[in-house]
Amino acid sequence: MVKRTSHKGANCPVARPLDAIGDGWSLLIIRDAFDGLRRFGQFQKSLGVAKNILSARLNNLVEQGILRTVPASDGSPHQEYVLTDKGCGLFPVLVALRQWSEEYLFEPSETRARLVDRERGQPVAWLEIRSADGRALSPEDTMIVMQHGSNNARRL
Amino acid sequence: MVKRTSHKGANCPVARPLDAIGDGWSLLIIRDAFDGLRRFGQFQKSLGVAKNILSARLNNLVEQGILRTVPASDGSPHQEYVLTDKGCGLFPVLVALRQWSEEYLFEPSETRARLVDRERGQPVAWLEIRSADGRALSPEDTMIVMQHGSNNARRL
Repeated sequence: MVKRTSHKGANCPVARPLDAIGDGWSLLIIRDAFDGLRRFGQFQKSLGVAKNILSARLNNLVEQGILRTVPASDGSPHQEYVLTDKGCGLFPVLVALRQWSEEYLFEPSETRARLVDRERGQPVAWLEIRSADGRALSPEDTMIVMQHGSNNARRL
Repeated sequence: MVKRTSHKGANCPVARPLDAIGDGWSLLIIRDAFDGLRRFGQFQKSLGVAKNILSARLNNLVEQGILRTVPASDGSPHQEYVLTDKGCGLFPVLVALRQWSEEYLFEPSETRARLVDRERGQPVAWLEIRSADGRALSPEDTMIVMQHGSNNARRL
């Protein structure tokens, strides 16, 4: 086993999630959960991953509060995995990744899975980074600042 | 060495990028590149990662066309790493990850690095998923369809 570095104490919000979703399988499990997969066997069939790896990833996602287990919807003794609100919050991450990938990793001739608006069947709009007052921002228009926490909030 | 599954032939645009950016270190290198880091030593100091791992990740990012190497800006014999257009295209992925993380992984009392609009110093606007005609979309408002490639495009 490779000892993994933990980023859970990082001040950087890009680093901190990596313990939860920083490996490819976890992201694909989350994608499948958005697509409505719920059972261990469904995830395994979709991903073709070894059972012990899938089991560890599912347990980690439950531990991180991204998935939760519920009794099987058909009354069978299986348990099912569904996204929590925190897990559903990852939707923009998957959309952003999907759009980048469609732009740069696919040839026009290739078949691809597309995310469309259920009502109209059209691909979802391109994500744009905007300022609080609505201006489009490129990476150069932004910068990182350290923001100290609120001491008041600590007592809540 | 663990043999890694390759997703580069996947039809799913969430899976296909995982060979390029599917490990945490690669994502942190890309974050650092957006923050203006350019040299091997700068990345190493920022990430505290072993040189052989950093070197492998940088080489992979160059191979994937996300970073490119340029001569040192000060005329010294070092080479520097800068984001390509394809690399810059990952900006929304990092913003989405950052916003989710700030929402779910940070306590209000915690100090965090925030991405702000350089002109006004305000945090960038919250990313929203919208339809082509501008309606806000929740995950349930979307679905995946398989789209076949264009045969015409193959001849270009």
